[in-house]
Amino acid sequence: MSTSAYKNLVERCSEIALYNSTSALLGWDQETCLPKKGVAYRAEQCALMKGRSHRLFCAPEVGGWISECEDGDVGEDPARLANVRDWRWAYDRATKLPEELVETSERVRAHAMSAWASARKEDDFSKFRPHLETIIDISRQKAECFGYNETPYDALIEDYERGTSTADVAELFEELKPQLREIGLAAARRSETVSEEMLNGHYPQEAQCAFNEKVARAFGFDFEAGRIDTAVHPFCSGLAPGDTRLTTRYDEKDFCSSLYGVLHETGHGLYEQGLPAEHHGTPVGNSVSLGIHESQSRLWENHVGRQPAFWEHWFPVAKEVFGPLSSRRVDEVIAFTTRSRPSLIRVEADEATYDLHIVLRFEIERDLIAGDLAVADLPEAWNTKFEEFFGLSVPNDTEGCLQDIHWSMGALGYFPTYTIGNLGAAQLFAKAHEHLPGIDGELASGNYARLLEWLRCKIHEPGGQMLPSDLMRVATGEELSPSYHLEHLRSRYL
Amino acid sequence: MSTSAYKNLVERCSEIALYNSTSALLGWDQETCLPKKGVAYRAEQCALMKGRSHRLFCAPEVGGWISECEDGDVGEDPARLANVRDWRWAYDRATKLPEELVETSERVRAHAMSAWASARKEDDFSKFRPHLETIIDISRQKAECFGYNETPYDALIEDYERGTSTADVAELFEELKPQLREIGLAAARRSETVSEEMLNGHYPQEAQCAFNEKVARAFGFDFEAGRIDTAVHPFCSGLAPGDTRLTTRYDEKDFCSSLYGVLHETGHGLYEQGLPAEHHGTPVGNSVSLGIHESQSRLWENHVGRQPAFWEHWFPVAKEVFGPLSSRRVDEVIAFTTRSRPSLIRVEADEATYDLHIVLRFEIERDLIAGDLAVADLPEAWNTKFEEFFGLSVPNDTEGCLQDIHWSMGALGYFPTYTIGNLGAAQLFAKAHEHLPGIDGELASGNYARLLEWLRCKIHEPGGQMLPSDLMRVATGEELSPSYHLEHLRSRYL
Repeated sequence: MSTSAYKNLVERCSEIALYNSTSALLGWDQETCLPKKGVAYRAEQCALMKGRSHRLFCAPEVGGWISECEDGDVGEDPARLANVRDWRWAYDRATKLPEELVETSERVRAHAMSAWASARKEDDFSKFRPHLETIIDISRQKAECFGYNETPYDALIEDYERGTSTADVAELFEELKPQLREIGLAAARRSETVSEEMLNGHYPQEAQCAFNEKVARAFGFDFEAGRIDTAVHPFCSGLAPGDTRLTTRYDEKDFCSSLYGVLHETGHGLYEQGLPAEHHGTPVGNSVSLGIHESQSRLWENHVGRQPAFWEHWFPVAKEVFGPLSSRRVDEVIAFTTRSRPSLIRVEADEATYDLHIVLRFEIERDLIAGDLAVADLPEAWNTKFEEFFGLSVPNDTEGCLQDIHWSMGALGYFPTYTIGNLGAAQLFAKAHEHLPGIDGELASGNYARLLEWLRCKIHEPGGQMLPSDLMRVATGEELSPSYHLEHLRSRYL
Repeated sequence: MSTSAYKNLVERCSEIALYNSTSALLGWDQETCLPKKGVAYRAEQCALMKGRSHRLFCAPEVGGWISECEDGDVGEDPARLANVRDWRWAYDRATKLPEELVETSERVRAHAMSAWASARKEDDFSKFRPHLETIIDISRQKAECFGYNETPYDALIEDYERGTSTADVAELFEELKPQLREIGLAAARRSETVSEEMLNGHYPQEAQCAFNEKVARAFGFDFEAGRIDTAVHPFCSGLAPGDTRLTTRYDEKDFCSSLYGVLHETGHGLYEQGLPAEHHGTPVGNSVSLGIHESQSRLWENHVGRQPAFWEHWFPVAKEVFGPLSSRRVDEVIAFTTRSRPSLIRVEADEATYDLHIVLRFEIERDLIAGDLAVADLPEAWNTKFEEFFGLSVPNDTEGCLQDIHWSMGALGYFPTYTIGNLGAAQLFAKAHEHLPGIDGELASGNYARLLEWLRCKIHEPGGQMLPSDLMRVATGEELSPSYHLEHLRSRYL
């Protein structure tokens, strides 16, 4: 009996996955292709897909099947046990949201993303403000539906990093903050002689595309099962089995901007391509959390891609396609790609200052949700805090509180996962070195196969079978800790 | 009571339109973006969307609402009356197809399109053959479900050109065939001095894109509600309100190939962008038939875009972006773009020979469906007929029976609409001249607004309100006739 209940759940999840993957394509297309006048109708399409998926999962029979699995015997297979555990968690959570709220939320989101893009382009926060007010309001409604221990933000963060509370993040961030400031100041002093324009030149977009693809392919990204496109905000979307799409943006004066965007998204893409295909659609077939996802992107971007050894290997290749590099030395490229200084834009921030951007966003969004900060006061709060954290005054909202897409997507509680990912990346990379003797030599010769294989085995193939904290403990032999990340930053930047 | 039934139908159709437009995006993406390994899953997504749309329309309550509208009083509004008439036709037709056949058909189609693309690339008909056999089989099953008067092909053509029978097409084509051959021979003699390589040079894809977009914009295509991408087979997809997408393909030696592809698809796109948005989702909001659709693409491609006046205006603009044109004269470009000779590829065929390609395909697909020709014998039948019609031997299947995407899409009965469109284009363009004194001068100065306005009023804005034959009669004052097209060809090519 529980076997047929389990089978019913898998079938239902396959149908839901078809809707979700179609939703994901609608979203990808909106960011990369959709003409302006198609936005309104796209919002309706997204709302329908999300509503349908929600309805299929929240149907009473699904709850019945989950109970049957819990009460009956689904066997000892850990994947089955994990699926049942996660279905229960997700079902209880999803059935707390009225369908109308899910559809409204989707509709609001599509409009808000479009308004955000215009507001950012025209540096006009007032165009985004009413949309964000609605989004904060909807997020609070969702938190009330979900329930929480201490503060509504607890309920939101749960979507992105299960088992993490607002207090956990606040405590971690309070511990990190003074050390990050110390590292940031020292790193900036160390980089004083490295000019931001040092490598400036004309790097045609086409040449950047070709070089980025070459590196992504070397890392192991499968271009028969994925692609790279252009979007305002770089992202990775694991649309469906065999279809993982990355985006980046191009600055023809600076090839590093698109390159490191691609290396980062390739890390996400490798994770998506490495998930267990046989479990697609069920929780075990999914990535386990955003923090773990981000640990993969950061590992490839920063630990692999900003190593001196990376450039020792790739500099000759880059010289062949980028004319302006002919007069540069490899140590200059290394110094440039590990330079650090306080800066305005998170996605372009260096490692030494990056986490402070996250701490800032966490504090602001926590206050927005708690009602301690009004949306109307967001630009001022942002700018004040920015001055305090980085000693920089923010010249406009486009480079300030309008720079990130997340809030327009309704993704409140998402930002902390970036720093959780940074900690995970450092811890995994350190452990990979312990487990893989000789790996440095392989990386230095552009051979990434064994590192990828290790990540496949430790992180990708388990999919969603464990909770994120358990996965990290099993993979590295200890709890997630800030020490590896801080040690990495100190050794690179001090 | 019939008012609420009508309202229910409109609401149901809006939901169906969301599924259909999402399907259309899945299809567009498959042709332009989808990585190879994503094809199998895409087939499942398409099948789900089509199945859901079919189920929503075929539900018993829909039949009930239509009957209520027929029996009750929906008022005198011609749009309402037309919607009720078309819903009845479509409902009776759709409910004849078992849902399983619809889903199987979608799944087969997605796989067949991918197999066709490989077979074409590798010139290996055997890779496509089993897929085509399944498609022919499914098409016959569909025809049996629909029912027909004389031959199963009657039931298929009805999907593309309502009210047209196999016998109608056969009679028309028998009338055209000798005249087309005579025109083709004379046109080829007239073009003997025009070399295929006359304009050859290096035309970078980027410059072609920019020029094509400029012309499409001048014709009136709204790029805030549409875009142009690259695909193996040029097509236009009216995905959703505010989102009409054209594709073309590029040959860097010959800018005319992508340009005339774009002019053709722009004609389709202008029709899609001009449909009555307030009726979106209902039959009145749709294009009326493929023949009418094709009349729009042919009118802009051939009657506008191959006029000498077109090049009188655009040649100086083209010279600015295309280096190799600097040494050419405008009369050479005019001669080149109106040259004619028997050729292998339909989409690159000139006007004087184009319809013979259609006659050939009609005869073959009619025989495939009737069971008079086996799929295994298709390449030979194609090549024999080609020799007979054009005096050319077909060197390989890629340039022979594998050249068109239609059969892989399951679109049997589609080809005749191209020639119906050619007749319509000539008739409409001739009537536009009668109705719009001075239009030649406007076209010669690159001003297309009044011609577009006339087409908007006569063809686009009525949407699906009339049957195709009625629309043509109301627009031009007479039945669709081959005389305008033959006269146009004679005056241009003899």
